[in-house]
Amino acid sequence: MGDVAGIGPEIIARAWPELLAYAWPVVVGDADWLRRALALTAGSAKVQAITHSDEGTPSPDVIPCLKATTVPLSDVQPGRITAAAGRAAFDFLATAIDLVLAGRADGIVTAPLHKEGLHAAGLRYPGHTEILAERTGTARFAMMLYARGPQLPHGLGVVHVTLHMALRDVCNGVTQEGVLDKIRLLDHVMRRLDDDPPRLGVAALNPHASDGSLFGDEERTIIEPAVRQAAAEGCPVTGPWPSDTLFVRATRGDFNGIVAMYHDQGHIPLKLLSGLAAVNITLGLPLVRTSVAHGTAYDIAGRGCADGSSLVEATRVAARLVAMTGRK
Amino acid sequence: MGDVAGIGPEIIARAWPELLAYAWPVVVGDADWLRRALALTAGSAKVQAITHSDEGTPSPDVIPCLKATTVPLSDVQPGRITAAAGRAAFDFLATAIDLVLAGRADGIVTAPLHKEGLHAAGLRYPGHTEILAERTGTARFAMMLYARGPQLPHGLGVVHVTLHMALRDVCNGVTQEGVLDKIRLLDHVMRRLDDDPPRLGVAALNPHASDGSLFGDEERTIIEPAVRQAAAEGCPVTGPWPSDTLFVRATRGDFNGIVAMYHDQGHIPLKLLSGLAAVNITLGLPLVRTSVAHGTAYDIAGRGCADGSSLVEATRVAARLVAMTGRK
Repeated sequence: MGDVAGIGPEIIARAWPELLAYAWPVVVGDADWLRRALALTAGSAKVQAITHSDEGTPSPDVIPCLKATTVPLSDVQPGRITAAAGRAAFDFLATAIDLVLAGRADGIVTAPLHKEGLHAAGLRYPGHTEILAERTGTARFAMMLYARGPQLPHGLGVVHVTLHMALRDVCNGVTQEGVLDKIRLLDHVMRRLDDDPPRLGVAALNPHASDGSLFGDEERTIIEPAVRQAAAEGCPVTGPWPSDTLFVRATRGDFNGIVAMYHDQGHIPLKLLSGLAAVNITLGLPLVRTSVAHGTAYDIAGRGCADGSSLVEATRVAARLVAMTGRK
Repeated sequence: MGDVAGIGPEIIARAWPELLAYAWPVVVGDADWLRRALALTAGSAKVQAITHSDEGTPSPDVIPCLKATTVPLSDVQPGRITAAAGRAAFDFLATAIDLVLAGRADGIVTAPLHKEGLHAAGLRYPGHTEILAERTGTARFAMMLYARGPQLPHGLGVVHVTLHMALRDVCNGVTQEGVLDKIRLLDHVMRRLDDDPPRLGVAALNPHASDGSLFGDEERTIIEPAVRQAAAEGCPVTGPWPSDTLFVRATRGDFNGIVAMYHDQGHIPLKLLSGLAAVNITLGLPLVRTSVAHGTAYDIAGRGCADGSSLVEATRVAARLVAMTGRK
């Protein structure tokens, strides 16, 4: 459910009937906040409060909601940072992880949480991903943005070599091992996500891919060797390509997966191309986890106007990944 | 005409009749290469070789072409770098600049040249812009990408604080004075280009605009002070905004001008949004100069398949800027 003061409860309420096309969903969260969200969005389903995940029987009329925190949430206000909502969001996620690790659920789709809420609760994580990595004992992971849409009918996955890092630190953060690792993770997930074989492209770091080392040389010294090694291992990957033409080529179908060197290099084009239906996928975990690609949207929380498209798509993608888990 | 071994002659031949809707155009180049391009593109117009710019009488059937080099070009091959084509491209541009400075032409629209051709001719310029700056004695100038299209019905101009520079050098290349200067140049040109008042946005350097100095602090120390000063001078400008949402907001009409901090930050979204019809505009010169936003395309030169859209749009924009020169 994410942070109850954000739009998490509302997007679940709004997306609910569509989720059933892809999964047997159980909400891990708080029943009262879900009821409130159903009222706000004029949803007709009823909440079934449960205390064990297998008690639920999801249907268009029934949303099973597993109680997953002991923190009282009745004083939380929509759009306000509180330690209670932050702690509860952590508890919801921890419960979901434990259910999957115990074999009682197949995967996790997360609604947004608020970093400041986590901090208010004394939890020093930047976001979901680091909690997932810690609780599953995962050292090497990566965040992928994935989107389909009118301009990307076959879908495009973008994985980032560096992410929440000052631009000043990006050049030293891009390493040959990091690029190689991200190519491998992207290849692995795209074999599961897309019926067509992977067609992977790696973005250059410098403008014009440095124009033959005229400005910068990380293409020659770091990225090219990583691409060569991945190709030698059998990955269908090419690059580094100048990033301003690489994404245009992806819209023509030349690539269905891209390795970006830094946050904005991947996020600028994906957000332009995806509209509301982008999805985050955490790669490298021992479980399937997808997420909506938007935040808590405190500015509109509690109004009932949030859009559930990203949650629907995140659920579709998670179900696909679960179904394809064994694919080579 | 740019580099005759590139697609310059072909895009002129293809775009010719449409250019007459906006301007009284005279080609500054080589008549033989233009005749060849007309044959390749099945153009029906005839080339009128002239030796003074005012001899020409452009019409759908007649393309006046001012002889602007003494270098023999008959041995040049399409798609091959030569000193001859490089030198000629320089001569064409120099002639066009001199015509405008002498009051015999109103502005310049350039076809692409090839940097390696210039180098082969012993001319150490990275491109058109530096030649224009030197020959007009301009110290402060900036390159703007401008595009209209289905997703940008009102047009969007993007000016870059740094451009052909290694990403490693970008953070030190972004200065308060540089940001302020680019805001002013953007404000000045958008008042002429768009009937609506400027709505300018400045991109952040770091992801999430550094999330309150969590990763990087150039937003607080460099960009915000520049935006504040420009706003105090009356510029309708806001920012710094996270760059991955800034361009999405521009497609909704929130902004018609954006200041980008580095090459790919502006080029990735503009190339995705513009298709073939993006245009370069050099700001800060004492004359109007626009250019196609693509290169020489040596790989397809000589085949007659080049697209003239960008040249048509560059001509439209140049004519608009000439007409609006006096606007406050």
